[in-house]
Amino acid sequence: MGGSPRARHRRAVCRWRGGARGGAAPPRTLEPRQKMAAAPILARRIARSGVLPLCCRPPSWDRAPRQPLGLPLAPCRAFSNNKIQVELDESSGVAMMKFKSPPVNSLSLDFLTEFSISLEKLENDRACRGVIITSTIPKIFSSGLDIMEMCGKNMEHYGEFWRAVQELWLRLYGSNMVTVAAINGSSPAGGCLIALSCDYRIMAENPKFSIGLNEAQLGIVAPFWFKDTFVNVVGHRIAERSLQLGSLHPAPEALKLGLVDELVPEEKLLEKASAIMARWLALPDHARQLTKSMMRKAVLDHLVAHREEDIKNFINFISKESIQKSLRMYMEMLKKKKS
Amino acid sequence: MGGSPRARHRRAVCRWRGGARGGAAPPRTLEPRQKMAAAPILARRIARSGVLPLCCRPPSWDRAPRQPLGLPLAPCRAFSNNKIQVELDESSGVAMMKFKSPPVNSLSLDFLTEFSISLEKLENDRACRGVIITSTIPKIFSSGLDIMEMCGKNMEHYGEFWRAVQELWLRLYGSNMVTVAAINGSSPAGGCLIALSCDYRIMAENPKFSIGLNEAQLGIVAPFWFKDTFVNVVGHRIAERSLQLGSLHPAPEALKLGLVDELVPEEKLLEKASAIMARWLALPDHARQLTKSMMRKAVLDHLVAHREEDIKNFINFISKESIQKSLRMYMEMLKKKKS
Amino acid sequence: MGGSPRARHRRAVCRWRGGARGGAAPPRTLEPRQKMAAAPILARRIARSGVLPLCCRPPSWDRAPRQPLGLPLAPCRAFSNNKIQVELDESSGVAMMKFKSPPVNSLSLDFLTEFSISLEKLENDRACRGVIITSTIPKIFSSGLDIMEMCGKNMEHYGEFWRAVQELWLRLYGSNMVTVAAINGSSPAGGCLIALSCDYRIMAENPKFSIGLNEAQLGIVAPFWFKDTFVNVVGHRIAERSLQLGSLHPAPEALKLGLVDELVPEEKLLEKASAIMARWLALPDHARQLTKSMMRKAVLDHLVAHREEDIKNFINFISKESIQKSLRMYMEMLKKKKS
Repeated sequence: MGGSPRARHRRAVCRWRGGARGGAAPPRTLEPRQKMAAAPILARRIARSGVLPLCCRPPSWDRAPRQPLGLPLAPCRAFSNNKIQVELDESSGVAMMKFKSPPVNSLSLDFLTEFSISLEKLENDRACRGVIITSTIPKIFSSGLDIMEMCGKNMEHYGEFWRAVQELWLRLYGSNMVTVAAINGSSPAGGCLIALSCDYRIMAENPKFSIGLNEAQLGIVAPFWFKDTFVNVVGHRIAERSLQLGSLHPAPEALKLGLVDELVPEEKLLEKASAIMARWLALPDHARQLTKSMMRKAVLDHLVAHREEDIKNFINFISKESIQKSLRMYMEMLKKKKS
Repeated sequence: MGGSPRARHRRAVCRWRGGARGGAAPPRTLEPRQKMAAAPILARRIARSGVLPLCCRPPSWDRAPRQPLGLPLAPCRAFSNNKIQVELDESSGVAMMKFKSPPVNSLSLDFLTEFSISLEKLENDRACRGVIITSTIPKIFSSGLDIMEMCGKNMEHYGEFWRAVQELWLRLYGSNMVTVAAINGSSPAGGCLIALSCDYRIMAENPKFSIGLNEAQLGIVAPFWFKDTFVNVVGHRIAERSLQLGSLHPAPEALKLGLVDELVPEEKLLEKASAIMARWLALPDHARQLTKSMMRKAVLDHLVAHREEDIKNFINFISKESIQKSLRMYMEMLKKKKS
Repeated sequence: MGGSPRARHRRAVCRWRGGARGGAAPPRTLEPRQKMAAAPILARRIARSGVLPLCCRPPSWDRAPRQPLGLPLAPCRAFSNNKIQVELDESSGVAMMKFKSPPVNSLSLDFLTEFSISLEKLENDRACRGVIITSTIPKIFSSGLDIMEMCGKNMEHYGEFWRAVQELWLRLYGSNMVTVAAINGSSPAGGCLIALSCDYRIMAENPKFSIGLNEAQLGIVAPFWFKDTFVNVVGHRIAERSLQLGSLHPAPEALKLGLVDELVPEEKLLEKASAIMARWLALPDHARQLTKSMMRKAVLDHLVAHREEDIKNFINFISKESIQKSLRMYMEMLKKKKS
C-alpha cells in the first residue's frame, strides 16, 4: 500500500468498483442543493464509474418475522466490498450495511469513500427505501476517524481526508432513505457521528458499550457540524457539557440523555431495527423525506456554505506540532494497550 | 351554500357580524409588526365591520370556585356565532372560547375567519386578559384543517384558505392575552397547532384522546411554521421523529414528551384551566406580554417575512394531482368509516 | 458615600486597587472578539490600574480530600476585597470566589465592577484554570441586580450600571476558565444569571432555597441575553413558561427542570464543587476552551453586536415613571418586611 494517498485511494476505489465502466445513474434526490454540493467530489473520485457488481443471495441477517414461513425467500442483492458489506432486500426495500473493517472499523479515507459510494448507490436505487447500519466486529460499532490519516501526513492528504468526512456526513444526515443505526458496540467520536446522523438509534443494552463525541479527551475539537448534529439530538445543555468533557456515555446513560432512542438485548438488535424500519417505511416516502429535509436543512446548509473554510481550519489545526505530538502520544498509548 | 368561495365566505362573515356597520376599534397591541402584517387581510375581510352583538348572561362554564357562594354573579358578555361560542367574564377578565362546529370542529375557511375575528375582538377588549380554548363536541378538540377546503377547489380558494390558516396562527401564537388550551378530545394536525400556540396545555387524561402533527400520514407536509411552533414546545429531536412519523400521541405519551403540560380527569379540565389562568393573570400584563413576545418573535417574524412565498408553496403543493388523489382517497376512507 | 455615582464608583475601585499603579497584564484569551468588546470598558475603569495586593495563606475552604494528609499545605494566594473574597489555590489551579456583601449580595455597580475585575485578574493568571463561585451570606447566593441602582438615579447612571451588568456576563459566560456555581442559598434574577453562566451548577438541596429569572414578577423584563442564556440551559419551552411567570423554582424543581445540575446537602457543597472541578480540569484546557467557545459564541456575539442598543433600551425602560413607581413600591415592601 505505498504511493501517495491519492494513488492509494484510487486503487482502493478501483478494486471495489470491479473495473467495469459506464455512466453513473442520475441521482434520485429531493434536496438538489446539498446533494449537488457533495456530488462533484464523489463524481471526481468515481469518474467514469462502473456498475457495481451485484449478486443474488439469501439475506444473511435476522429478518423481523413478518414473512410467513414456507414462502420463497425474498430476492436480495448484495455487494460485498473491502470494508463494508451491503445487502439490499428488494422485497422490503431495506438495505443492511455492515461495517467489517478490523480491528475497530476506524473511518479511514478508504472506509469513508466506500461508505459514501455505497450510500449514493442505494440512494439512487429505486428498490431501496431504508438502510440499517451495524457492525460485524464484536464490541465495536465504529471507533471513529482513523488517527493514522491525521498523523504524519501532508496537507493535501489532510484536506482530502477531511473532505471525505464531510461528504459522508452530508450524504448520511441528508439521506432521503430511512436510516437506522443498530449500535452493537462502542461508538466514540466519528462512530457516534454516524449514529447521530441516522433517523433512529437502537443500542445493545450492554453498559460496557459507550457512545459519545469524546474529541476533547484527545485534545482536539469536534467541528461545528458534529456539534450541530449533536445539539439537534440531545439539546444545547447536554451537548455543551458532554462535548466539553469529551464524555463517553455507557448505553444506559446514553438512553437517559436521549443520545440513543432505545436499548435492547444485543441478540434482539437487528430484529428490533427491522421492526422500527418497517414502522418508518409505513409512511409515504415523499412527505417523510420533505419533513426530514425541513428539519435538517439549516444544519446541512451551514456546512455546505462553509465547506472549504472548514477544510482549511482542519488542515491548520491538525498540522500543528502540538496536536501532532498529542496524537502520536495517543497512538503510542493504544499500541501499548494492545501488546 | 353556492357561489364562489369568496362570496360564500362573505356571507358567513356578514351573518356573524349581525349586519351592523361601523369602524373597527384600533388594536391594543404590543407587537406592531406582526399584528400589522395580519391586520390588512382581516381588515379586507371585515371591511366596514360592525359592532359585535353582545348580551349579558351568567357564565355557562364551570368556574373555579374562587368566587364565594351567595355573591351576585359576575357580569358576563357573550357572543355566540356559528362555529365558536365566546363568553367573556368581565370580573375575571377571562374569555371562554368553545368550538361548536359538528361533527369534528374542522378548521374550514369560515371557522378560521370566525376564530381570527373573535381573537381580534378579545385582543382589543380591555376587559379581556386571557382566553381558555376548548370544545363542546365530545371526544374532539379539533380535527384540524378541513380537507374539503383543500380538495377539488381552484387556486384562488387554496390561497385564501392558506392565508386564513396563517392569520389564525399569527394572532394566536402572537396574542398578548394569556391563552390556555383545555384539550378535551383528540387534536390532530391543525387542532394540535392551536394547542401548541397557546401558553399552556391541559389535556383530559383519557388515553383514547391523542394529539400530534400527523400530516405525514396523509402524504402532506406540515409547513415550516407548524414545525417551528412544535420545536419550540418539544425540542428538535422529538419534533423530528414525531413529524416524520406523523405520530398521534395518546394523552399520557403527549405529557411525557412535553407536548402538553398536564393531564387531569376530563370533568376537572375547565376548573383546572381556570386555576392555571388565574396563576398566569397574577403577573403584571405588560412584563408578561413583552416576555412572551421576546420568546416567540423570531418564529412569528419568519412567517411574516415569507408569507406570500408560503402561500405559493401551499398552492403548488396542494394542486398536484398526486396530492389531490391522496386527499380524495383519504376522504373516501373517512366516508366509509362513518357508514 | 456621597457625590456622583461615577465618583463613588471610582473611589470604590481605587480602594480596592490599593492605589498602586502600572500597566494591566495583556489578557490570555481565546476569543479576541468578545474579550476585546468588554476590555475597553473595564480598561477605562481601571485605567493605569495597579497590581493587585496578594498574600499567601492556607486555603480556608473544604478541599476535596485529594491531598494526602501530612503533606505541606498548597501555596495559596488570596485577595480580599470589599464585596468578594478571592482565593487562588495554585496547586490545584482553582480559585474560590466568595460573595460577602451583606445583607443579600445584591449586584450593585461596585459589586459588579469588583466581580469583573476579579474575573479578568484570574483569567490572565496562568496559575488559575477554574473558579468556584459561592456565597458567605447564609441562605443567599445573590439576590440579583441592586434595585437601588435602578431607582431614582439619572440616565447616565443607568447606562453605566447596565454596561457593568453586560460586562460581567460577557466575562463570565465567555470565560476560558472552568466555572462552577456552588449555590448555597436563594438565587433570583441576576443571581440566577450568574449561576446560569457557569459551566456547572450544584445547589444545596434545601427546598427553601429557590432560583429563577423572576423579573416578570417585578413588572420588568429579563433582557434577551438573560433569555438566551436560560434557553441554552433549560430549552425553549421551560424558559418560555418560567420567564413569563417569573418563577422562582425551589431546589428540587430546579433540578427537575435542568436549571441546576445536581443537589447535595449544604455541608457537602464545596467538597462536591471541588470534585466536579477536578473532573473538568482533567481535560486539556485548549480543546475544552475551544469547545466551550463554539457552544456559547452565537449568544455572546449577539449581545456584543447589540450592546449599545441594549443599553439604550434599558435606560428608556427603567426611566419610565410607571416602572420607577413599581420599583419604589417593591422597595417599600422589602423595607416593611425587614422591620
